[in-house]
Amino acid sequence: MNAQRISKVINKTMEIGRQQISLGNVATYIPELGKARKDALGLCISLPDGTVYKAGDTNIRFTIQSISKVISLCKALELRGAETVFSHVGMEPSGEAFNSIVELDLQSNRPFNPMINSGAIAVESTIIDYVSFEEMLEYTQRLCSDSGITLNRQVYHSEMNSCDRNRAIAYLLKSKDIITTNVDNSIELYTKMCSLNVTAESLANFALLLANGGICPGSGERLLKEETVRIVLSIMLTCGMYDGSGRFAVEVGVPTKSGVGGGLMAPVYGRCGIGIYGPSLDQKGNCIAGCEMMKHLSREMCLHMFQERQSG
Amino acid sequence: MNAQRISKVINKTMEIGRQQISLGNVATYIPELGKARKDALGLCISLPDGTVYKAGDTNIRFTIQSISKVISLCKALELRGAETVFSHVGMEPSGEAFNSIVELDLQSNRPFNPMINSGAIAVESTIIDYVSFEEMLEYTQRLCSDSGITLNRQVYHSEMNSCDRNRAIAYLLKSKDIITTNVDNSIELYTKMCSLNVTAESLANFALLLANGGICPGSGERLLKEETVRIVLSIMLTCGMYDGSGRFAVEVGVPTKSGVGGGLMAPVYGRCGIGIYGPSLDQKGNCIAGCEMMKHLSREMCLHMFQERQSG
Amino acid sequence: MNAQRISKVINKTMEIGRQQISLGNVATYIPELGKARKDALGLCISLPDGTVYKAGDTNIRFTIQSISKVISLCKALELRGAETVFSHVGMEPSGEAFNSIVELDLQSNRPFNPMINSGAIAVESTIIDYVSFEEMLEYTQRLCSDSGITLNRQVYHSEMNSCDRNRAIAYLLKSKDIITTNVDNSIELYTKMCSLNVTAESLANFALLLANGGICPGSGERLLKEETVRIVLSIMLTCGMYDGSGRFAVEVGVPTKSGVGGGLMAPVYGRCGIGIYGPSLDQKGNCIAGCEMMKHLSREMCLHMFQERQSG
Amino acid sequence: MNAQRISKVINKTMEIGRQQISLGNVATYIPELGKARKDALGLCISLPDGTVYKAGDTNIRFTIQSISKVISLCKALELRGAETVFSHVGMEPSGEAFNSIVELDLQSNRPFNPMINSGAIAVESTIIDYVSFEEMLEYTQRLCSDSGITLNRQVYHSEMNSCDRNRAIAYLLKSKDIITTNVDNSIELYTKMCSLNVTAESLANFALLLANGGICPGSGERLLKEETVRIVLSIMLTCGMYDGSGRFAVEVGVPTKSGVGGGLMAPVYGRCGIGIYGPSLDQKGNCIAGCEMMKHLSREMCLHMFQERQSG
Repeated sequence: MNAQRISKVINKTMEIGRQQISLGNVATYIPELGKARKDALGLCISLPDGTVYKAGDTNIRFTIQSISKVISLCKALELRGAETVFSHVGMEPSGEAFNSIVELDLQSNRPFNPMINSGAIAVESTIIDYVSFEEMLEYTQRLCSDSGITLNRQVYHSEMNSCDRNRAIAYLLKSKDIITTNVDNSIELYTKMCSLNVTAESLANFALLLANGGICPGSGERLLKEETVRIVLSIMLTCGMYDGSGRFAVEVGVPTKSGVGGGLMAPVYGRCGIGIYGPSLDQKGNCIAGCEMMKHLSREMCLHMFQERQSG
Repeated sequence: MNAQRISKVINKTMEIGRQQISLGNVATYIPELGKARKDALGLCISLPDGTVYKAGDTNIRFTIQSISKVISLCKALELRGAETVFSHVGMEPSGEAFNSIVELDLQSNRPFNPMINSGAIAVESTIIDYVSFEEMLEYTQRLCSDSGITLNRQVYHSEMNSCDRNRAIAYLLKSKDIITTNVDNSIELYTKMCSLNVTAESLANFALLLANGGICPGSGERLLKEETVRIVLSIMLTCGMYDGSGRFAVEVGVPTKSGVGGGLMAPVYGRCGIGIYGPSLDQKGNCIAGCEMMKHLSREMCLHMFQERQSG
Repeated sequence: MNAQRISKVINKTMEIGRQQISLGNVATYIPELGKARKDALGLCISLPDGTVYKAGDTNIRFTIQSISKVISLCKALELRGAETVFSHVGMEPSGEAFNSIVELDLQSNRPFNPMINSGAIAVESTIIDYVSFEEMLEYTQRLCSDSGITLNRQVYHSEMNSCDRNRAIAYLLKSKDIITTNVDNSIELYTKMCSLNVTAESLANFALLLANGGICPGSGERLLKEETVRIVLSIMLTCGMYDGSGRFAVEVGVPTKSGVGGGLMAPVYGRCGIGIYGPSLDQKGNCIAGCEMMKHLSREMCLHMFQERQSG
Repeated sequence: MNAQRISKVINKTMEIGRQQISLGNVATYIPELGKARKDALGLCISLPDGTVYKAGDTNIRFTIQSISKVISLCKALELRGAETVFSHVGMEPSGEAFNSIVELDLQSNRPFNPMINSGAIAVESTIIDYVSFEEMLEYTQRLCSDSGITLNRQVYHSEMNSCDRNRAIAYLLKSKDIITTNVDNSIELYTKMCSLNVTAESLANFALLLANGGICPGSGERLLKEETVRIVLSIMLTCGMYDGSGRFAVEVGVPTKSGVGGGLMAPVYGRCGIGIYGPSLDQKGNCIAGCEMMKHLSREMCLHMFQERQSG
């Protein structure tokens, strides 16, 4: 696909995204998130050869929220190994919303997967005694090739004031000996990671790193093991969009993770990295423009994992 | 990968499979299935160029069981269209066992996906008034390039005598207006489709057809629409191995469907079709040898969707 | 309490009942029930000394519906013994609506109690091979001292056409070996028992029999064993009003069973039997007037099990 | 029943109780409880006329545990009124174990009833800003006519170290705005109330007070409103023995509350108060001897609410 054709696709994609904005709403469960500009929209596509396509608000900072679950999972896998990590959390899609407690208590001895809150808290607990938040921040900057990432203190404090449900989850995990670390520390690290300020471009960079098998395309440096990438992408594909993951796999066919801050990060394996920003969310908490944009991009650029790439 | 290397991989794979056999058990919930030779094992890999690698019992006939869910889904998608089909059944992995009723009743207005019993019965109900069993048999023969496929009457009658749970599911679906067709007819078609006699080679042929995007590699004839293939493969990937689908996607990374008759069918998109027969099952009802064999094949032949294909 | 005082209480109770009628609705899930006169209201209180207080529509015939669960339980206990019956059904309130399937499948090896559909079907299955419907009809006539009770064929046929959910429950019970009898026969007997035509007076008579410990006050004949009465009243108290049973025990404190036909049957142990008819139902399917009337009667006549009877 | 006959019944009851002891186990989830003498057994029956029958270890101190839920409910009803209390907690039996989270999260906007942990924590939250622990201690002493009741500090600290699940429940309640008070304070008061040292005699006294409609039989002083007693007894009857409440209501027919410290408190309305101590517990956490003893006492002394009292 040549540059001209791509630009055309991107323009059309932005147009499709803009049409969605009014159908969604900015997250308001914490006041800070409610301040986002609802009509903001940015799309960034990064290619292994260094080409970067940008459109719209690709440099607005917003909090990474649930997309940080992918980063913590990467760190945990590299630091503690898959076996240890998956003794604390499963790999199964849950068919449940992101903050489900029911299934956790009912039938499993560990959270379903690392992409739901309970699973992410369990993942956090495997690294809490091994890394500081500062190291995690630096790690995030590296994976996203973005040294401008910082902690958004307003959002962090705002979230800490409304995390009763996450605390409930953490204490439940502790009562079941799934986590043995300090609950307050786990919640603090989890919430700080959610409150990192990124851009659509940071997300595209991170997505490209994953799409490229863990090797930074620019420097050629391996930042993530192949196995880590394989695990992370597979889990993103089956669990990344919560209880809409199955439909997304059918319709888009690209591992994708969204956050209620409005971000969406999609590594197209062997092809490119996509980052989207749009704080207007659908009812499941996904960027409403981003979902339609991904569908369009998948169709036009033949990104679906089970679709032949067409020449042209 | 040259033929010699593949032969070596296949031999090793068979060896790994054989080591698993004693750890599992033949299905016994119906007497007929219990008669299978527990130590039977067959592996067939079909390539688009017509090459077929076979090892072990690739021509033993056994009942297709749940793998027929894929065939019925293909037929329903082609006959009724995705929109109609997915108004009766969802696309989400359920995190539940294959015959779960709980989630169905509790929170959803339709079965989670077409790979669990309730979903397959719902799919069957969309075609029951449009095709006869005879047409479905012929369709199966065509998709599997195997005119030797017949109805195993012993298994069929045996299953009809122990399908109270499926009847319960069907009446529950009817009470919720998810199906409006005759319950007895739906159960009959569903059970007949499960009782078709196939071989590991039939399954490899069907897998190859899907891996090849719906075009029969031999004749060049398109038997399935591209869209049908994309949907079916995506759903197999996220839901094909029941509540072990997530782990399978991580460890193997190939859409796969198993049946309690011992069959396993795995299309490697753009590469090849794999069929395995081994009636010794693990606790989830999957071919115990087949799962380990798929892991080995995936690793050795770089079949994982998120793994680079190596030369050599 | 003298006759004059009682008459006054009854008049006031009827007035309270009438005020409720417009707040509820006649059952419409089957067309036949929808034909009931919404504003019908009848109250009958029978005393051991033969005194009968009647007000309003005490002789209108309506279908007994769920109140028949009490009659079937009586028969099963007398015919098969408590041990056998309670090996097929539990005694625990479920906190669930009357037609719940979830709990049945999820965690129990038998239905929670005989007052929910699954439990009643299980109870029916213990007697199906021992009594005919004709015998059950005669039994019902005897317990209610009402030889005018007959099968309402319109309602019966209407219900048989919309009992998919009950069939689902029965097949689920059969798949778990909780019932081993023929599903069609069990559903037929269950549905016929629900379709018996009674009056508020029949129900008051039955209630009086239970309140009197199983001895018919008129003839002095023992129709039910003491143990049967004790079991039946206890279960009515904890489970008789579905997921509103706990509140009813607090506010009224009298074992009570309602039916969607509009009937309500309440034995006040050692005191009297109450029968109410009012087809306008609340959202849980209980006679909306009857619930408020029972509250008033309980308060005015000190009927609560944990309230001192006042003189006067 | 004369004194001689009662003594005989009590002796037989103690014998029946002793036979159960070896079948149960002392609670060990916190070390302090594990120190109880497994073979301890005490029975105390208090009559309104001041007669007290005692047998065995009626003066051993043990922690009241869940029986304190009844005391907190009394206080909350008297202090805040039924309407306020029941806007935070329901009155329905749950069919679930005492520490269930599932139902709480799944389908209700408040805990099922005040006898399960979540409900008791919600009740505690309604009074936490109105009374101090010291006042609650004094209140307990008054209701139990036992000024010797004190806080067992060893048990209290031991429990505070293993209350992660209760904290999970409290945070979940807070996230749903069912409680709005401080979680730590609520857990502290709840745990302190569970850690009060009582005796079988204290429990019999409290039971007698309830059986006597809230009036202290000795002084004639009204300590609890009639309405409070009616509510509390009704809820004890339907919910007091957790998911065994229904069976207990059938077999014993007396409102009863047990605690894992080994206590059992049973008010027989209008008749007497029963207190039992026996730290050997059954699998549901009820005093194993006490349950059989209550069955025997109910049968021999005709205590069942639906049983005629016999002369003699």
